[in-house]
Amino acid sequence: MKRRIRMGMVGGGPGAFIGGVHRMAARLDGKIELVCGAFATTHEKNMAMSEELLLPKERCYDTYQQMLDAEAGLPEGERMDFVAVTTPNSTHYPIAMSALEHGFHVVCEKPITMNADEAKKLAAKVKETGLLFALMHNYSAYPMIRQMKGMIAAGAIGTPRKIVSTYDLGWLAGANACKQAEWRVNPKFSGAVACVGDIGTHAQQLIEFTTGLKITEVAADLTTFVEGRLLDDDATIMLKFDTGAKGVIEVSEVASGEENQFKLRVYGSTGSLEWSQMEPENLILRTNDDAMKTLRRGWAGMLDEVKPFIRTPAGHPEGFIEAFGNIYLDFANALLARLEGKPYSTSFPTVDEGVREMQFIEAVVKSTGNNGIWTRI
Amino acid sequence: MKRRIRMGMVGGGPGAFIGGVHRMAARLDGKIELVCGAFATTHEKNMAMSEELLLPKERCYDTYQQMLDAEAGLPEGERMDFVAVTTPNSTHYPIAMSALEHGFHVVCEKPITMNADEAKKLAAKVKETGLLFALMHNYSAYPMIRQMKGMIAAGAIGTPRKIVSTYDLGWLAGANACKQAEWRVNPKFSGAVACVGDIGTHAQQLIEFTTGLKITEVAADLTTFVEGRLLDDDATIMLKFDTGAKGVIEVSEVASGEENQFKLRVYGSTGSLEWSQMEPENLILRTNDDAMKTLRRGWAGMLDEVKPFIRTPAGHPEGFIEAFGNIYLDFANALLARLEGKPYSTSFPTVDEGVREMQFIEAVVKSTGNNGIWTRI
Amino acid sequence: MKRRIRMGMVGGGPGAFIGGVHRMAARLDGKIELVCGAFATTHEKNMAMSEELLLPKERCYDTYQQMLDAEAGLPEGERMDFVAVTTPNSTHYPIAMSALEHGFHVVCEKPITMNADEAKKLAAKVKETGLLFALMHNYSAYPMIRQMKGMIAAGAIGTPRKIVSTYDLGWLAGANACKQAEWRVNPKFSGAVACVGDIGTHAQQLIEFTTGLKITEVAADLTTFVEGRLLDDDATIMLKFDTGAKGVIEVSEVASGEENQFKLRVYGSTGSLEWSQMEPENLILRTNDDAMKTLRRGWAGMLDEVKPFIRTPAGHPEGFIEAFGNIYLDFANALLARLEGKPYSTSFPTVDEGVREMQFIEAVVKSTGNNGIWTRI
Amino acid sequence: MKRRIRMGMVGGGPGAFIGGVHRMAARLDGKIELVCGAFATTHEKNMAMSEELLLPKERCYDTYQQMLDAEAGLPEGERMDFVAVTTPNSTHYPIAMSALEHGFHVVCEKPITMNADEAKKLAAKVKETGLLFALMHNYSAYPMIRQMKGMIAAGAIGTPRKIVSTYDLGWLAGANACKQAEWRVNPKFSGAVACVGDIGTHAQQLIEFTTGLKITEVAADLTTFVEGRLLDDDATIMLKFDTGAKGVIEVSEVASGEENQFKLRVYGSTGSLEWSQMEPENLILRTNDDAMKTLRRGWAGMLDEVKPFIRTPAGHPEGFIEAFGNIYLDFANALLARLEGKPYSTSFPTVDEGVREMQFIEAVVKSTGNNGIWTRI
Repeated sequence: MKRRIRMGMVGGGPGAFIGGVHRMAARLDGKIELVCGAFATTHEKNMAMSEELLLPKERCYDTYQQMLDAEAGLPEGERMDFVAVTTPNSTHYPIAMSALEHGFHVVCEKPITMNADEAKKLAAKVKETGLLFALMHNYSAYPMIRQMKGMIAAGAIGTPRKIVSTYDLGWLAGANACKQAEWRVNPKFSGAVACVGDIGTHAQQLIEFTTGLKITEVAADLTTFVEGRLLDDDATIMLKFDTGAKGVIEVSEVASGEENQFKLRVYGSTGSLEWSQMEPENLILRTNDDAMKTLRRGWAGMLDEVKPFIRTPAGHPEGFIEAFGNIYLDFANALLARLEGKPYSTSFPTVDEGVREMQFIEAVVKSTGNNGIWTRI
Repeated sequence: MKRRIRMGMVGGGPGAFIGGVHRMAARLDGKIELVCGAFATTHEKNMAMSEELLLPKERCYDTYQQMLDAEAGLPEGERMDFVAVTTPNSTHYPIAMSALEHGFHVVCEKPITMNADEAKKLAAKVKETGLLFALMHNYSAYPMIRQMKGMIAAGAIGTPRKIVSTYDLGWLAGANACKQAEWRVNPKFSGAVACVGDIGTHAQQLIEFTTGLKITEVAADLTTFVEGRLLDDDATIMLKFDTGAKGVIEVSEVASGEENQFKLRVYGSTGSLEWSQMEPENLILRTNDDAMKTLRRGWAGMLDEVKPFIRTPAGHPEGFIEAFGNIYLDFANALLARLEGKPYSTSFPTVDEGVREMQFIEAVVKSTGNNGIWTRI
Repeated sequence: MKRRIRMGMVGGGPGAFIGGVHRMAARLDGKIELVCGAFATTHEKNMAMSEELLLPKERCYDTYQQMLDAEAGLPEGERMDFVAVTTPNSTHYPIAMSALEHGFHVVCEKPITMNADEAKKLAAKVKETGLLFALMHNYSAYPMIRQMKGMIAAGAIGTPRKIVSTYDLGWLAGANACKQAEWRVNPKFSGAVACVGDIGTHAQQLIEFTTGLKITEVAADLTTFVEGRLLDDDATIMLKFDTGAKGVIEVSEVASGEENQFKLRVYGSTGSLEWSQMEPENLILRTNDDAMKTLRRGWAGMLDEVKPFIRTPAGHPEGFIEAFGNIYLDFANALLARLEGKPYSTSFPTVDEGVREMQFIEAVVKSTGNNGIWTRI
Repeated sequence: MKRRIRMGMVGGGPGAFIGGVHRMAARLDGKIELVCGAFATTHEKNMAMSEELLLPKERCYDTYQQMLDAEAGLPEGERMDFVAVTTPNSTHYPIAMSALEHGFHVVCEKPITMNADEAKKLAAKVKETGLLFALMHNYSAYPMIRQMKGMIAAGAIGTPRKIVSTYDLGWLAGANACKQAEWRVNPKFSGAVACVGDIGTHAQQLIEFTTGLKITEVAADLTTFVEGRLLDDDATIMLKFDTGAKGVIEVSEVASGEENQFKLRVYGSTGSLEWSQMEPENLILRTNDDAMKTLRRGWAGMLDEVKPFIRTPAGHPEGFIEAFGNIYLDFANALLARLEGKPYSTSFPTVDEGVREMQFIEAVVKSTGNNGIWTRI
């Protein structure tokens, strides 16, 4: 019998930006229903969320442990199907691990954990349990990123040679950044890195996701520009890939005046593709012997695998929430297929990409500490 | 006691584009719940929608009349609060009128009716009943359009002088357009005009909405380019406004290769503003004595009245569905305020704007038939 | 024997904008040499120009009449070959006519004369004398405009249906515009119109030039927004063409904040082309069944007839002066070919396009005075 | 007494791209006259250039040595004032050195020489002779680059922190690139590097020019992607500056489909500036607390020092040739001032910037050979 997939949430309390996005994204297609949560760290805030979200008080738990225990004890027709983990980095591992141990599927914010060790343990647990684990690398779910991935795989630009990704934000340019930024530059909550974990991993993941290449070595330079800050707020990372391709990731959170300027260019032997997050409906194809083409979401040339993630015709802009929603849509479809015993092939980022991102971070830190020398992932 | 607003839907059956957008938009903020519908013209299709939307079979009605009668008879705690009318033009009037007579609030697609007479009757009924009536001029709910309206009202460009709006689509360039286009060029379903009703009214509404001016005269030229087509697929309309301002609307549905190219420029005595639907996050302010400014949704300078309609920070693109969602959010908030007996000031387009759009259409038709002569609205 | 073509200039005295552009454009390719001029209305200013331009004092004449008489009397190896007329509109006719009568070729600024009558007389004189007459519709010499013309002729967009050109400047938005603007709004120097003559004719010429169509009827609305101004500073003009195509020209010189925003879109039955003067290196081709293509000057796909007017590789921006220079290059090549007795086919705008632009202006004025009614050219 | 500055040219024979640009640029403002040249390596080609350029046969020399000797022997009123060196890299040093030794001023293409040693010798000779030496870093002469430099100096973006420059071309993506590319990847003519010398030095120079900072260390990765090629066709270079600022240069000549995509972003503590060579009329200013501003050449806000290098009003595009021309204009003005004994302050790049660029290249090569380790310039 058809039903909605039931979601529980950890994090996303009053004022949280990304938690709200998770909820909008999960609602968008009508396949997911939020049924419970441990949204915040105080009872009062959780009760406020109960009221805001029209959830029963008894399913707004004070801790994620309570939520996992209680929900696991509910009848099958009521209990949540999966947990969305939208807390600071430091708690991803214990929450996700415990959720898996309680038999719940997981959607987890990135970066997956505090280190590669934790990530590998999660990966092992996912394998062991056979549960679904989606890592919220939302940018990888933009339709034109899927188009880019498909076109590269199909040889549209020949062999990738040089990959350039830049991701620049201005929000940490000043010493007194907003509250949402605080935990991100605190090693206790963020881990060994700040900027590289927050946005550098987006670049690393999107590069590997779209090209299918693996980064094998990095030569990195982490910088802290704002005095007194304990972690990096800027980085440049040179890349070598398993095929001999080269690349560079440039990221900064002190890029004054930038909103969320994330760009990716892949140069191949016969052509190149360029995508920019702030104009996500475009994918630019250049070659040496034809006019520049701007492929547009929903217009001519869309690959079959992209079509399920298109909601409106070309020229009716889709954006960030819709891309986020694509991860949830894919995840919900996978769970629905399981319920119905049907095959389904997922395309969302998995725990394995979480392992990669942590290994990448560790190599970046090591190279920086070693005078920028090339360092293996 | 807090609850979700309950929505019933007429139209939006299998394959309908705009019905699906209404549903996504209504879901987005978690304040509205779809509880029933008369989605299509056959029982089979309505049952298919019941399954797709996980709605009880008994609340998927075969006709809007059945729906209105049945829902009116349900207990207050169950019955729908409002009807969303997403059918072809010809049925807007009977459905909306009957919904109002049954005591339901209405969200109605544009253009509101088949002629000004019907629109005026609806306006009278809205006034009489005191029910809410939102006209789905979705573009007017883009945050940067609200910003434009607020800035013009605040004198940011001086006195508006010249207003230029162009709206070009290619979808009817060929003789065999898609099925969704068919009713739009059939007088039986579309009324006296096709292109002007479909997109010309968007331009007219957005011009009057953002500037606060009223069009008083038009000199128009309706054209049918594709042989055998019974209604206009292209138009140019010169405008005079109540303040002495001038303008022009250029619209075409045979603009080969255009997706949904809707643009608006307002030139005032000291500055100008430009907005483009396909890049809806930008609002360009130009003056003769300063650098061009691109205001961005969510970045510096947002007016207070715009903020409630912003869901993500700048640089995290919002689009068409979110703008649509803003009408539903505003509508839901208004109904919630009524339920709680609180004051609330709506900003969605109303039935009065529906009367304007029909008067505009009638003047355009008259001018075209009269050798393009200036004709009063 | 090879030599440079010798140019004499009327107008372009101290502070004149367009005269300076003529000189830079004429110098660019090293085929033209400025040998004399009647640059300004006083002896002092002409002597200042002699010094600035390193010209012999005796060839900087006080009046164009003196120049024509004196130069006509010089030996063939010294005297100028052609006259460039860069004065206000009112003097184009007497200067150009006298130049032709003295046996000189002419490059003349637009609009060609004060009325269609004068233009026809010039056309007759050109025919009678067999001299070359280039009308400085500089925009028609941008390489991507030539590309657009060639592609339309070759059927790249099918049959043209709808043509839209907008040309907006802010320089006359205030009452006290700069000195260069003064004569343009003075009927004594400018003629029956200001804005339409200054920029409306650019739009009309470019439309007819690129499409090969002829405007047969206009329905026009001339407006004067700035109080006390004697001529139009804004206009909207609906168009009918000889093939049944339709169009609209929107022009304004009170478009606050606009620099020189001249755009042209041509929609055909199978595709469309868009060009924008402020990004002149791009030509956008859209169709309903392929990705949008941006053709770039010097990159793939250039037509043979465009190549002679390309000076640098793609990505090395060419602009306004180079386009202007293309008219001079074509003119110089034509004169050189005459000297050598070789055939040469010119592509610059001619006196016949001058007749068209004056007829267009007269029809626009007539329609405006006649309540906007459709009026034959 | 006023006169034109007399230019002799080495290089720029039949089919040479950059030589032709030098000539157009030198002609543009009417202050420079080409009087002689040693354009090519055969007598026949030099005679062909004599005919093409309308130069006396006797001043089209077969070798630069002949030219320098012969011109030095001409009377002062005839002989050239300066030599423009537009040959492949390997000959810059001997030609420029000999020109200086013969008493001629020099305009020299970049990169200045084959190594830092030669560059230093040239610098010493320039100092010794007091002659003018302009290094043709043409991009530094774009008006909006001058504006960027001036705004940074004036504190418009606070303290520069992160500088990112990318320069991508596709022309060497294939094995069989055009003839003009051949010498550039041949160590005999190009030196120790290809891509980094050809375009990497443009990035390095523009960064130091606009910010006033000095690069102190590089961590570099030179790559050769096309098999059989002897020199780099791609590079990534991380940067440290004398103030603690960081940066990155990414350059590629195998960036398939790119025309001449040169970009520069400078992020400071309170704002940032972005410029792109293919849209050279724009300079984008971003801050965290105001709308994005696009400064436009010729529009509001131009600094005084930029104005002499502006030829047309805003919206009348200037480009590559005009920027090139600005170096020549500045150079000619400086020579004219010398002739008249007046003071003049030049702004063109000098021999000292040539020394910097060679030191930069040498450090890049060294770092690449040393596993990417940070290496001092």
